[in-house]
Amino acid sequence: MSRLVLAFDLGGTNVRCGILNEQFEILARAKCAVGTRPAPSEAVKKMKQIAEEALGNIGKKSGEIACVGIGSPGPLNSQTGIIFETPNLGWKDVPLAKLVGDALGRPAFLENDAVSACWGEHVKGVGVDIQSMFIFTLGTGVGGGLILGGKVWKGPDDIAGHLGHMIVQPNGPTQVYDNPGSVEALCSATACIAAAQNAAYTYPESLLAKIPPGEITGAYVNACAEKGDEPACEIFRRIGYHLGIACASIANALNLELGVIGGGLSAAGDKILVPLRKELRRRALPPAGKRMRIELSKLGDDAGLVGAAGLALERLDGKQ
Amino acid sequence: MSRLVLAFDLGGTNVRCGILNEQFEILARAKCAVGTRPAPSEAVKKMKQIAEEALGNIGKKSGEIACVGIGSPGPLNSQTGIIFETPNLGWKDVPLAKLVGDALGRPAFLENDAVSACWGEHVKGVGVDIQSMFIFTLGTGVGGGLILGGKVWKGPDDIAGHLGHMIVQPNGPTQVYDNPGSVEALCSATACIAAAQNAAYTYPESLLAKIPPGEITGAYVNACAEKGDEPACEIFRRIGYHLGIACASIANALNLELGVIGGGLSAAGDKILVPLRKELRRRALPPAGKRMRIELSKLGDDAGLVGAAGLALERLDGKQ
Repeated sequence: MSRLVLAFDLGGTNVRCGILNEQFEILARAKCAVGTRPAPSEAVKKMKQIAEEALGNIGKKSGEIACVGIGSPGPLNSQTGIIFETPNLGWKDVPLAKLVGDALGRPAFLENDAVSACWGEHVKGVGVDIQSMFIFTLGTGVGGGLILGGKVWKGPDDIAGHLGHMIVQPNGPTQVYDNPGSVEALCSATACIAAAQNAAYTYPESLLAKIPPGEITGAYVNACAEKGDEPACEIFRRIGYHLGIACASIANALNLELGVIGGGLSAAGDKILVPLRKELRRRALPPAGKRMRIELSKLGDDAGLVGAAGLALERLDGKQ
Repeated sequence: MSRLVLAFDLGGTNVRCGILNEQFEILARAKCAVGTRPAPSEAVKKMKQIAEEALGNIGKKSGEIACVGIGSPGPLNSQTGIIFETPNLGWKDVPLAKLVGDALGRPAFLENDAVSACWGEHVKGVGVDIQSMFIFTLGTGVGGGLILGGKVWKGPDDIAGHLGHMIVQPNGPTQVYDNPGSVEALCSATACIAAAQNAAYTYPESLLAKIPPGEITGAYVNACAEKGDEPACEIFRRIGYHLGIACASIANALNLELGVIGGGLSAAGDKILVPLRKELRRRALPPAGKRMRIELSKLGDDAGLVGAAGLALERLDGKQ
């Protein structure tokens, strides 16, 4: 009989949960707001509530699930289950896996949200049957995850896979860290919005200038580009170009089979993918560049839930 | 009883061989020139001659060696033992492992020279007891090799580890491939010499301008820097800076324990390492940057021989 897994996707404002079977079908869902800077115990209480709500929808109890997987923004340690810091939630050194596991009476496992999304695409999305792949999640920052030879690669300090902190333009802008020209500083939604605000100022006839700069979102820039607005299109070409440079470095260093582009900004689709693939093919050694497909996330918002469930089962079974 | 391995290090002008025991001590050596664009059969004949010379020095015959390892410039496929192309030797699709194995009557294995050097440092050099590490070999080009979890990582097409083709300055100069601003285009001996020729023109008072531009070598630039010549020092600072950017990308993506700097230009030592480490520490996520030591090659010219021997034994034993 197929086991059930409970998965959480912890975001800055909401926490979502799903009940999945071993085929990674989502049988039930629930979500709620986490509130502003909640105490960890308060957040865990809410996580328990939505878990019971989702379980109730399919007539199950927490004792019937095999394990719990939690995808969360980091930095965190997936081996100890401790979240070191979450700027949005205001947490420091919270042993979330233990707290959630104790609350639900089942073994619980924690993983970085982008790594979870990468594993989700590997088991149920665009990376099924692929053994070596990576993901870029284009959100407020740029998350990354790496699967080598069918296993998540995290390195000796559990911090590998931060591909958003690879450097593509060393004299470029800085985002959070003192690492100018990182993928994150050039290709995140935050970077996209900053570029759009600049373009609105430089090109007052652009659609980007039709709303107050403070209201520009990645989705709005995409909508402008969809209407053929040249400054908006150029922003996505630059994002694709810079992602393509990072992908070429990854191809030449690691010879992977697949790169997945996910996160909110990936809604721009071919506006990013076409220049990305062009730069990748140009710069990668031919066998490495030919091998590495670049595709959009197939699971979208569910990639993290599916991957958190999948990795929890892997770890319960001692496979990772 | 310790097995014996015969190892070759195939260069553009010379081929060297060594007889090693399982502790990777080099018990005997021999070398010869390979000549200009030799037929593969001619080169194999010379390789057999120097092998017999080295074996004779310790009173052994080829039947007494366990296997043969060959480190060679690529591109090549280590699984099929075929060299696709060697610009210097003028070879195309030469099944070198088979040719050498047949000539000596022992199983023979082929590997990229930089990957061999990386493995050499892993088993006998600066990377002993290190499970996850990489190498940059600074020569005519910049070779690379990658060891993850105690095994060479080559990827599905046997081409991973080409770290010299990672990008650090996308608008930078181009070397062989259309991949501007690669590590190779900025940090190879070739790039060093080009920078020195430019500097000699710009700063006629520099020691770099004391000899004809066509006679400048990496060793000469190093000698000038040793004497405090500022334009020469600046060239090594720039090389260290660009290597540091690449190392930061590697640390953030892979969280490795060690990076080794080898090849002829590594003779510049701290003149490269100091700016390299500074840029790495600045840009790497703290746990990844703190973890990753950067050290000079310990084995120098012997790294390739030791690694070719070590990898041949690994493969003979089915470990890789």
